[in-house]
Amino acid sequence: MSLADLYEVLHRRRDTRGEFTGAEIQDDVLRRILAAAHAAPSVGLSQPWDFVLVKNQDTRRAFRDHVQAERSVFAAGLEGERAELFSRIKVEGVMESSLGVVVTYDPDRGSPAVLGRHAIADAGLYSVCLAIQNLWLAATAEGLGVGWVSFYREDVLRRLLDIPARLRPVAWLCVGPVRSLPETPDLERHGWRNRLPLDDVLHHDRYRARPSR
Amino acid sequence: MSLADLYEVLHRRRDTRGEFTGAEIQDDVLRRILAAAHAAPSVGLSQPWDFVLVKNQDTRRAFRDHVQAERSVFAAGLEGERAELFSRIKVEGVMESSLGVVVTYDPDRGSPAVLGRHAIADAGLYSVCLAIQNLWLAATAEGLGVGWVSFYREDVLRRLLDIPARLRPVAWLCVGPVRSLPETPDLERHGWRNRLPLDDVLHHDRYRARPSR
Repeated sequence: MSLADLYEVLHRRRDTRGEFTGAEIQDDVLRRILAAAHAAPSVGLSQPWDFVLVKNQDTRRAFRDHVQAERSVFAAGLEGERAELFSRIKVEGVMESSLGVVVTYDPDRGSPAVLGRHAIADAGLYSVCLAIQNLWLAATAEGLGVGWVSFYREDVLRRLLDIPARLRPVAWLCVGPVRSLPETPDLERHGWRNRLPLDDVLHHDRYRARPSR
Repeated sequence: MSLADLYEVLHRRRDTRGEFTGAEIQDDVLRRILAAAHAAPSVGLSQPWDFVLVKNQDTRRAFRDHVQAERSVFAAGLEGERAELFSRIKVEGVMESSLGVVVTYDPDRGSPAVLGRHAIADAGLYSVCLAIQNLWLAATAEGLGVGWVSFYREDVLRRLLDIPARLRPVAWLCVGPVRSLPETPDLERHGWRNRLPLDDVLHHDRYRARPSR
């Protein structure tokens, strides 16, 4: 049944690092997941995203090295048990995945007057994220894994892919076939953080402060 | 078949303004779409979102009035044909929809060291948008419409719902049963802007500049 299937995909989706097989993504599958991303809602119908499909091994290796350096930057700020926990957590599958999909935000798309963006400049950036989640869910339904890597400096990624300064890289997504998707998120399995109950984030008519977790 | 159903929902989804019936959303349906949002991926498993469910009519009316004022601000910057086109476009269904769902971003969730956010401060904001798209797709599959209103000032919405200054409102979503979902996006139907072909936003290994549209 359609409804149950959708929820199954929504809840099965994982942020994938260690489960990529490296096998090729079929062209028709790749086309469908990119079309899914491109079908996302966007402020003023601006569709302000671009997708750079990165297969080149040298480019990916250079990015992976940068990510590892940024991993060390983050690690250096941790102490004791947190540092120990983090040392066991894999943060990227750049080389193991089949493809890098870099998603960017182009604020000039649909300019000058983007309907719905005059009061909230970031609304265009928000649209790009909606496209990313569409891609993620379609990939999950197709049996692929997706891992969002965010241990990088935007300028480094711009230089690596010739992305103009006015564009903003929003994500490097590692995409590809996986052995399996873990039932529990990696960070929860490693004891880094547990998921919150839904009721902790629900409010009625007005925001009510609660202890932040 | 599951895969076809998912793509059907991804492509059928619309940004809804004029089709709300105002009928009640069933409690179990609302719970499922909020649980779908809450199942989104998030940087460092921070789940930095909150959902304020706004039923109160006075609150919604005050917000609607503010949105109308911001609509006029945007309209004042348009000229000629664009102004004429815009005058026919409905930008919100705040009172006609069944429920307002205000989604906020809490940067303190999971602090101090949010895994994956040290290099990209906005990564938490991105996570909130992924939750919004999950909600949108689940609502679409449940036969509801969703309309993202972005004609507002964040401070006005904060004051209206007692949202603390450190939190950022990301969206007011109009949610509820609809008569139907239009096949063509409103803005395209009114001649404001047409959707781009997918190939216009695809790049291989490096970003290649193209005429911005």
